Amino acid sequence: MTIPTHDPRDGSSQDTDITPTPQADVRAAAARADAVFRQLRDVSRADRATALRTIADALEADRADLVICAMAETGLSEQRLTGEVNRSAFQFRMFADAIEEGSYLEVMIDHAGDTPLGPAPDVRRMLVPLGPVAVFGSSNFPFAFSVAGGDTASALAAGNPVIVKAHSSHILTSRATFDVIHRAIVDSGLPADTFQIVYGQQAGVDLVQDPAITAVGYTGSLGAAQILISAIGERETPIPFYGELSSVNPLIVTEAAARARGAQIAQGLYASVTGSAGQLCTKPGVAFVPRTDDVIVPELVRLAAAAEPQPLLNAKIHESLFRIQGDLIASGGASALRASEPVGPGLGATPGILEIDASTFTAAAAEEAFGPVVVVVRYDTLDQLPAALDAVPDSLTATVHCEVDEAAGLADLVTDLQRRSGRVVFNGYPTGVRVCWAQHHGGPWPATNSQHTSVGVTAMRRFLRPIAWQSAPAVLLPAELRDDDASVPRRVDGVYQPAKN
Amino acid sequence: MTIPTHDPRDGSSQDTDITPTPQADVRAAAARADAVFRQLRDVSRADRATALRTIADALEADRADLVICAMAETGLSEQRLTGEVNRSAFQFRMFADAIEEGSYLEVMIDHAGDTPLGPAPDVRRMLVPLGPVAVFGSSNFPFAFSVAGGDTASALAAGNPVIVKAHSSHILTSRATFDVIHRAIVDSGLPADTFQIVYGQQAGVDLVQDPAITAVGYTGSLGAAQILISAIGERETPIPFYGELSSVNPLIVTEAAARARGAQIAQGLYASVTGSAGQLCTKPGVAFVPRTDDVIVPELVRLAAAAEPQPLLNAKIHESLFRIQGDLIASGGASALRASEPVGPGLGATPGILEIDASTFTAAAAEEAFGPVVVVVRYDTLDQLPAALDAVPDSLTATVHCEVDEAAGLADLVTDLQRRSGRVVFNGYPTGVRVCWAQHHGGPWPATNSQHTSVGVTAMRRFLRPIAWQSAPAVLLPAELRDDDASVPRRVDGVYQPAKN
Repeated sequence: MTIPTHDPRDGSSQDTDITPTPQADVRAAAARADAVFRQLRDVSRADRATALRTIADALEADRADLVICAMAETGLSEQRLTGEVNRSAFQFRMFADAIEEGSYLEVMIDHAGDTPLGPAPDVRRMLVPLGPVAVFGSSNFPFAFSVAGGDTASALAAGNPVIVKAHSSHILTSRATFDVIHRAIVDSGLPADTFQIVYGQQAGVDLVQDPAITAVGYTGSLGAAQILISAIGERETPIPFYGELSSVNPLIVTEAAARARGAQIAQGLYASVTGSAGQLCTKPGVAFVPRTDDVIVPELVRLAAAAEPQPLLNAKIHESLFRIQGDLIASGGASALRASEPVGPGLGATPGILEIDASTFTAAAAEEAFGPVVVVVRYDTLDQLPAALDAVPDSLTATVHCEVDEAAGLADLVTDLQRRSGRVVFNGYPTGVRVCWAQHHGGPWPATNSQHTSVGVTAMRRFLRPIAWQSAPAVLLPAELRDDDASVPRRVDGVYQPAKN
Repeated sequence: MTIPTHDPRDGSSQDTDITPTPQADVRAAAARADAVFRQLRDVSRADRATALRTIADALEADRADLVICAMAETGLSEQRLTGEVNRSAFQFRMFADAIEEGSYLEVMIDHAGDTPLGPAPDVRRMLVPLGPVAVFGSSNFPFAFSVAGGDTASALAAGNPVIVKAHSSHILTSRATFDVIHRAIVDSGLPADTFQIVYGQQAGVDLVQDPAITAVGYTGSLGAAQILISAIGERETPIPFYGELSSVNPLIVTEAAARARGAQIAQGLYASVTGSAGQLCTKPGVAFVPRTDDVIVPELVRLAAAAEPQPLLNAKIHESLFRIQGDLIASGGASALRASEPVGPGLGATPGILEIDASTFTAAAAEEAFGPVVVVVRYDTLDQLPAALDAVPDSLTATVHCEVDEAAGLADLVTDLQRRSGRVVFNGYPTGVRVCWAQHHGGPWPATNSQHTSVGVTAMRRFLRPIAWQSAPAVLLPAELRDDDASVPRRVDGVYQPAKN
């Protein structure tokens, strides 16, 4: 049995030569990853950084072919996918810089000495890689959250071998990306088994249950996550499951902002809701708009009416979108100002603009509709928002459009949004997540199930653990923990010391 | 129904006026904690630091009374308990220093600008407190891992309200400690509900299932942990359970070290195995001693034979110790060079020295015996150790006694021990955990179920989560994230900047 590939642009399917990885092969891959993990500790940070940069270069070199392959499997545009390959390459380079800089090791040295509690031994601490990491990419980012994504990059950067489970929604793109990265890894002199791939849903379950796997990075639906979480629950040894799962991303427009720049907000919001056919985890799914507004909502409807349909990623997402839109109307009480409609022959969909009153808004109108649909919630006063927001599941992001002179008065609202999300966006849109040191891509359950981020430099920390060494002979310490090393920033006897180059 | 107190020194029990907290009261406490959490964000780091120092002072001021109370409930010595109160006070002060220093906030600022991926918005990140934290202390540290322990100190330091579940094995000490800390909190001007306490096993379950609770810190047995973990599994919203669970702590003596300083090692090992009646999570439970040694083992036996019995903490631990010692002999094949014996009228026990050959050593001889018992494993060559260590559950610590000139040759062994533990100790003993920045008190499962430490400054991180702010007006940012603030170290545009005072 082989795994087919589907083209959402015309609804066609084709067989491939890719077969589901049998359990024995998954076990063998995990065993090889475990063996290679021991070799990887002899690879210097500099050599690991070089490998990551080689991967970035290789992705860019093969960008055109990768993009063509992904266009046929995802229906996403050439421009969008080209940007995504660039983002993946950028991410590998960012982690290369970070491991050279070395602060991610969190080196701390407390020399032996007298303390208020008596004489104390020398204690030194740093983070070390966890072990083989399993990575599950998402359907909606065939590069930046898939084989070449942030989980792969951060786990490799931290010094771990990685086994990715290819996403069935872009199986050929997964293999092609794997081949590019794998070749770059071998070309860099790293062991070949540093990076492996498995195919098929059962292989994913077998993977997370393998004793050699020490952590799982996952981006995708809550449903598939639950299958993996319960598979992990059957393990003898628990391991962390870092899941980025779902997000409704409430967006709030104040009356002043609506008055001052309604048309501009409508255009920005429309682009954020419909970009990549609305299939972004940070898409604003619920927009709180003042009842007095007579610009934003009509403009959203006008833009939606004028839009060409865009193909959705796969049949499941296509089917879900219309089912959930139906629920939002039937159970949630939203009315369709313009409903999203399926358009053949492929998996096309037009944008949908729904509307509901804040006073009748419930959780049934706040279900995540993955696709180009937004629910506008009309409110009278900002006082209504906390109760209305209680109906919205906690999210990756929350957004506020406001005017400068009213900002100070919104402190309580913003504090409330901080409690409900992992990133608060002002006068912008949550889509287009910047990849940088300060980024946090996470949020309270059900957005994610951990405190950690899957974007930004600190994503590495998910795949590291601390070890302390007490009274260790220098020769048995990692180089970065020796007194005569100053290649990384360190906290020595409680005081930060920059690296000396 | 009230909760009794037991005196392990004479086996007596007495009724108390403490009753199990009913479910309604647990819910009310959690609701108050949730309400107070919103107030706590208006408390400055300086005021929080002052409160922690006030707690430290109060613990020291009431030290004599607390110690007398704990002696009667734990059978631990005055000296040991006095040291433990001092350690608790020291811990509160350490966290006070850490929150003033501010690096724990992990402030990162990436200004808006052009990037290789195009124009990017301003993104700022820092850690914020998680919310109400439930703390479950252990029986064996009535102060430093209980009501006044590191979990309480680190969760409060991070800005969270705390609800402790009192340990039934030192119920009066728990209440007395709670009263001291609670008074200090109120005296410092913090809201009274910042710190609360509940009593009884069911109250503990109710607590972790309350929706307002956002994290659990736990030190204790794996069995009780499983009850809490499965109770947490029934929650609608998952929360982290930071458990410090069990540890066998292998210790290895090389032939050269045994030859050079056998008597000294015997005395140190004996003190580490029998201190606090062997009821320390870092007690070395298995000691690998070369077969050629004729000093260490005889000296251990001699010291054990000369020892007075010490009371164990409670009847359950007392019963378990002799049951497990019996298993180590019957199922594990260890022989008793000198068996631990129960001594009445209270819960006394004498030290036990068991012995087994590395070639017949299995997991059945490596079960944790919580009490003054060690299993000596006789080995011929260091090559035997990796296989023998496979029988030992991964632990908080691993210890090596070696000579300076052989250290370099032990690199592979030490790497192996790093994989199996969270702290590697050289020519010392794992008990007496230093409280400092660089400490890590954790280890692979079943030692703990998380990568995080429960001792040392980074223990705070368990109770914090990141938030990112995008393009936020300065007035809506936390002070530490504003451009004109330099009160804490920050990473600005990727570059570390020290605080300016």
